[in-house]
Formats: sequence, structure tokens, C-alpha cells
Amino acid sequence: MYTYSSKLLEEAVDEFALLPGIGKKTALRLVLHLLKQEDKNVEHFGHTILRMKEEIVSCKVCHNISDSEICHICSDPYRDKKTICVVESIRDVMSIENTQQYTGVYHVLGGIISPMDGIGPADLTLESLENKVKTGACKEVILALSTTMEGDTTNFYIYRRLHVYPVEISTLARGVAIGDDLEYADEVTLGRSLLNRTSFEETFKNSNHGT
Amino acid sequence: MYTYSSKLLEEAVDEFALLPGIGKKTALRLVLHLLKQEDKNVEHFGHTILRMKEEIVSCKVCHNISDSEICHICSDPYRDKKTICVVESIRDVMSIENTQQYTGVYHVLGGIISPMDGIGPADLTLESLENKVKTGACKEVILALSTTMEGDTTNFYIYRRLHVYPVEISTLARGVAIGDDLEYADEVTLGRSLLNRTSFEETFKNSNHGT
Repeated sequence: MYTYSSKLLEEAVDEFALLPGIGKKTALRLVLHLLKQEDKNVEHFGHTILRMKEEIVSCKVCHNISDSEICHICSDPYRDKKTICVVESIRDVMSIENTQQYTGVYHVLGGIISPMDGIGPADLTLESLENKVKTGACKEVILALSTTMEGDTTNFYIYRRLHVYPVEISTLARGVAIGDDLEYADEVTLGRSLLNRTSFEETFKNSNHGT
Repeated sequence: MYTYSSKLLEEAVDEFALLPGIGKKTALRLVLHLLKQEDKNVEHFGHTILRMKEEIVSCKVCHNISDSEICHICSDPYRDKKTICVVESIRDVMSIENTQQYTGVYHVLGGIISPMDGIGPADLTLESLENKVKTGACKEVILALSTTMEGDTTNFYIYRRLHVYPVEISTLARGVAIGDDLEYADEVTLGRSLLNRTSFEETFKNSNHGT
């Protein structure tokens, strides 16, 4: 498609174009941008990528990414190890951590069951989750997966596998989002939030208004 | 904004977010994608970036990027060294090369005069262009800059500076694009293409139809 005046330029563009959501044109823009930067900045960029892959590891306990064998959440003595929140990916851990409402630990599945994409239970870290529950050291498993069909399937699969052990299994509350107009809430969500209505005092106690 | 579970991850995300058009969210997606790839692919990516900055140089003659001191266009014995096409950036060289209609050489300015962005004539490779013209070895300078106000300003500046030498100075033809509907052409373009109308035989001879 393009005639590059440098073999190395072409190689660099091809490498960038392998990244998700980046086509040849964007890749070329990125490479030309890097070429205009100072040597030491580009060197730092290249070395960061190399170091990242070498040094970032997966936490042995929760499979979250970490700089050490056990991540800072799992090794935090103030976190409640008896409550495990099961999430699909590392990004979900970040989202939940951002709420500053959760004091338990996590378990990163590394995906959800999706036959369409060829992802079955064996591709996820389910065995390691079961092992944690088996020992009886865990009191509650919170399933915090997406509310999609794949998420529901995975929820159900995990429930079937874990309900034989003495552990409480819960899912995230579903309902109308805070700040949402009732008019624009979909029927399924609105219907569920009516069925699972909570006591006003409870809601008021948990709300962050004025704190 | 985000709580990263790894310092190195945060560093990598910050590095990617420095690239143009890439925010923190996209940067995180790219980094997580790289972490999922095989070691050797990521290593290759990192090394390509390092090598690129070290080994890609600017051609001493035309300022195009190149793997060697003189780029493959300038060192090609079949290219007409008497015709110099002045372009803003490396990308424009690629665009013109793609047409396969040009057999002369290039001169990359490295930008256009734009007082708004603080780019003046001194920031461009104008002196090196003048030196080429001064020697009399060049017969024609084709100004192939964007048809924006900045492009026109730069065109005019170059014209003023070079017209004292015995050299022909031309610009790209402006007119209705091939495949364009007259209805949707803007008035300025349409007006100009009427004023600069070409003989039908000439157009027919140059057209690529049926070749």
C-alpha cells in the first residue's frame, strides 16, 4: 500500500499496526511522532516495553498483575481474605478498587466462558478458585462479572461448581444506576430493581450523600 | 484516576499515553494486550522501537527519512535530479511516490510556516533548498504543499526567496478531483479549475483510463 523510504520504518509501522485498534495509517503517525522525539525519551519507551514484559508477573494467589509474586492487595494484612470478589479481568479489579468500597480480595478469571470465542471453563483460573473455597478459609464469593449472556453463563457455571462447599455466593446488585432517569432505564433492569427493592433506611445509610 | 496494581504497568501506560491520539484508557488496553502476547513478540516490538530511533537517519540531500546517509530516491541514477518537489513532510513523499507519476527528487521542509504554532522560516530546511537552487543544478522547483493558508504563505515565501535564481517554480494543479461530482465541489476550486482549464487532448493524453 505504502512505499516506505526505509526498511526499518516499515518494520516499525508493521509492529505498531499489530496493536488492537491501530491501523497502518495510525501506526505511521505514531512512528513518525516517535522519530521526532528526543533520543532518550524513545529509548525510555522501548526499555519500558521490554522491562514490562520481563518483570510484570501474575499474582500467584489472585492472578492479578503484580510487580512481585504476591500482589499488594493479597499481601495487605488489612484486607479481608475471607471475601473473594471474582472478576473477569485486571481492568475490573481497577474499576472496583476505584470505588474504595471493597475491602476483600480478588480472583481474576482471565476471561469469561464464551463458546463463540472458543473459551471454555478450562481456559479460566477456576481450579485455583475452587481450591481456595475447598479449604473452607473463604466465607463469601462475590460474582462480579458483566451482565451479559456470557457473564450470566459463567456466573451459573461457577455457582454450580462451588455451591457444594460451605460458602456464600452472591452477585452484584442490579438496578437503576445512580443519576439515571427512570424514563431511560430498560424494562429488565427496572423490573429487577422493583423486585429487589431495598429498605429506604438501608439505602440512606449506605449512600455517600453528604459524606 | 486509576489504581494500578503494578508500578511498572503504570509507567508503561503513561508512556503509551504520551503518543498522539492515545489517552489513558487506550494506553491501558494496549499495554494489557502486549502483556498477553508471547515474550518474543513483545521483545521484538521493544527492540524495533530502540533500533528505529538509533538507525533511521535523515537523508543529507532531501531530508527524507532513510536507512543510509543518502536515501534511495536521491541515490537512484534514474531519477531526474534537476526537478525538485518541495513537500511538507515524509508522509507527502509517500503519497506522491504512490502515484508512480513522479520521476524527480524531493525536498522535505519538515513543516510549514505557521506563526500560530511558532514555526518560522528558520525552523524549516529552506537554506538547504536555496543552496541546491543557487548552484544552478536545478531546473524546476515544484511546490507541493497543502492548499491551506499556511501552505500558501509558505509557497509565497519560498517563491520570494527563490525567484531571483534562474529556476522555474511551479505548484500542483488545483481543480476538481477525479471522481468528484461538480455539485459538491466548492466554488473556489471550481472557479480555479475553470480559469486554469486544460486542452482536452492534453487531458486525454495524460489520463490513465484504459492503461
